[in-house]
Amino acid sequence: MSLLVQKYGGTSVASVDRIKQVAAKILAARRAGHDLVVVVSAMAGETNRLIALAQQISELPDEREKDVLLASGEQVSVALLALALKEAGQPARSFLGHQVRIATDNAYGKARILSIDSSKILQSLKAGEVVVIAGFQGVDEDDNITTLGRGGSDTSAVALAAFLSAQACEIYTDVEGVYTTDPGICPHARKLARISYDEMIELASTGAKVLEIRSVEFAKNFSVPVHVRSTFTDVEGTWLINEEEGMSDVLVSGVACDRNEAKITLLKVPDRPGLAAQIFGPIAEAHIVVDMIIQNVSEDGTTDLTFTVPKADHKKALAIVEKSARAVNAKGVKVDTEMAKISIVGVGMRTHAGVAAKMFEALAREGINIEMISTSEIKISVVIQAKYTELAVRVLHEAFIGNQGMV
Amino acid sequence: MSLLVQKYGGTSVASVDRIKQVAAKILAARRAGHDLVVVVSAMAGETNRLIALAQQISELPDEREKDVLLASGEQVSVALLALALKEAGQPARSFLGHQVRIATDNAYGKARILSIDSSKILQSLKAGEVVVIAGFQGVDEDDNITTLGRGGSDTSAVALAAFLSAQACEIYTDVEGVYTTDPGICPHARKLARISYDEMIELASTGAKVLEIRSVEFAKNFSVPVHVRSTFTDVEGTWLINEEEGMSDVLVSGVACDRNEAKITLLKVPDRPGLAAQIFGPIAEAHIVVDMIIQNVSEDGTTDLTFTVPKADHKKALAIVEKSARAVNAKGVKVDTEMAKISIVGVGMRTHAGVAAKMFEALAREGINIEMISTSEIKISVVIQAKYTELAVRVLHEAFIGNQGMV
Repeated sequence: MSLLVQKYGGTSVASVDRIKQVAAKILAARRAGHDLVVVVSAMAGETNRLIALAQQISELPDEREKDVLLASGEQVSVALLALALKEAGQPARSFLGHQVRIATDNAYGKARILSIDSSKILQSLKAGEVVVIAGFQGVDEDDNITTLGRGGSDTSAVALAAFLSAQACEIYTDVEGVYTTDPGICPHARKLARISYDEMIELASTGAKVLEIRSVEFAKNFSVPVHVRSTFTDVEGTWLINEEEGMSDVLVSGVACDRNEAKITLLKVPDRPGLAAQIFGPIAEAHIVVDMIIQNVSEDGTTDLTFTVPKADHKKALAIVEKSARAVNAKGVKVDTEMAKISIVGVGMRTHAGVAAKMFEALAREGINIEMISTSEIKISVVIQAKYTELAVRVLHEAFIGNQGMV
Repeated sequence: MSLLVQKYGGTSVASVDRIKQVAAKILAARRAGHDLVVVVSAMAGETNRLIALAQQISELPDEREKDVLLASGEQVSVALLALALKEAGQPARSFLGHQVRIATDNAYGKARILSIDSSKILQSLKAGEVVVIAGFQGVDEDDNITTLGRGGSDTSAVALAAFLSAQACEIYTDVEGVYTTDPGICPHARKLARISYDEMIELASTGAKVLEIRSVEFAKNFSVPVHVRSTFTDVEGTWLINEEEGMSDVLVSGVACDRNEAKITLLKVPDRPGLAAQIFGPIAEAHIVVDMIIQNVSEDGTTDLTFTVPKADHKKALAIVEKSARAVNAKGVKVDTEMAKISIVGVGMRTHAGVAAKMFEALAREGINIEMISTSEIKISVVIQAKYTELAVRVLHEAFIGNQGMV
């Protein structure tokens, strides 16, 4: 028998009827001869309901207790799914994070999985049961309940697939797979049959919301084949796999856009060693993640320093930067929330020159000004004015992917 | 410092506002110099909501998974109460059944507490924290989640008080204590200042709903002083204690009524050895609890056999009994759901004669016919027609307790 790990998200278990549909999908996989470990999220809306309760009590709820609260959501769904399976005649058993010891560090709200004790899972599989495991949660070494952060159930599923050496990890979601770009923006967007882990990591970090980035890193580190597919159809989705021959023939696999960043600029800062540390130290201490940073020294010995932060954090960041700006004698601080980051991603870039030039030309032809540029080995991101987002995505999709493609 | 265990029921934590009120009560007890272990139930309505979800999936939900589901209710309330305490500046820490190892047997839905590991609780108290523990739940030796049944949080609280050798266990509820009878029925009902465990056990088993009977048995076995009082006032409630001098001067401490039983009669059964076993064996196998049993042999060698069962089970019981009735050649089966059981309870009965006679006379004066009688050392119960319930309660309260009393 082959072992599959399946993960069903919040919309897939949003109601009793949906849970029964998920049970039917699981039964079909059993009939096809698979052993099954199933990871589920909280019912859609439940996590937000619980967070709202906590925030009625405290604006910034204690992290440990918030995790105890949130973990109850997955507890409800595993019990209901196990009940639905048993009702359909399929032996099943639910497990919570502490019961199979999904051991994590103690970073409440964003814990990392360290190990999983597979003994109870294997025992249950051997007894012919479908194993239903609460996603998103674990326990630290002192038995405190931890959660893995938003999208953490993806990570739970991939980690289980890794520790159990499963044949594959199937991520069931409300879209049919990973697309070359957002189909809502570009009518030519196409589903990818396969994509490398590295490309998916770049896409996830540049705004494609199909998978949580940590789960992809986990999959890469343990070479877990991940199949992203729809709960509501039976068609094949997208396989996440190691880079393989032929993949780098394709220059660009996907075009992503992200409107959730804000740009902050310090104007005319006297350039001297230690400047960046003085600016970014306090921002890091406030746990604000800085994405792109650009610094350009001009001939008068001052520099404009520009960087991006999550839009949700821009007010907090601004308050910190305004203080630093005075300390370093900057001429002023500018903030821009009406911006977008557009990225093209593809392992083919490693071996092909001229990709960046082609990208800039395509945007220039439409009169779209590029405000910032950042590149990695397999990704090029540009920051542009937000109003050009859709146009830029369509232009780049046409230039690099076109109407025919890799599917 | 003295250690108090406090228990707050579902209505006391029914909303965020109520939870904040509970936190204020806890702070007051801290200021009075007490160390505190607080046990909470699920928010009112939550357990019923979860049961409804399960029943949409399965008419008779699997017991193990139902316990996983229901235990999530208390998980939400402990987290919210700990958050409220911290928000008010009081260090606090929540624990679930598995975290402090409230070890139970594996009788899902009605598990019994075997032991409690106090080490984490003591460590937390030593750190100055209020310890908030999920009531109603535990784990069996294999780490499966178990629940203790309705009212189980009372048992959790009393068991914690016993294992921690607490000074007292305070049960906060929506009434001010234990009354001589239901104040809704009898205007002269008065709050008892104290009552013996044995009396409380009889009252609980005869329909007084203040405390779950198992919790009282636990309190008795470990001599835990229990203080039943209101969440919404600061007045003293009722103390449950060991029988002490002076208590038996009072003939009757309370009058209870129970309308949740049905009476089943087998008519003219040929009397022979083994008859009762043949009738009650199959009923016990169906897990139906039989309360009172009366058998009277008449001169023709047949007997009428009458017994009572919970009203909710009477249809199931009837189906079983009708089968047995044919097997033993009974003339027929009669069922009566319009009946009530009225009980008087008091440790004074042990040493005073004539209590039963006085009870029967009081009822006879009002023309109330007694259909069944059952007695224990400190209790007399009679079954009467349901329409006389209120009248019988008032008459017996007047006869034994009157307008002046023991408070």
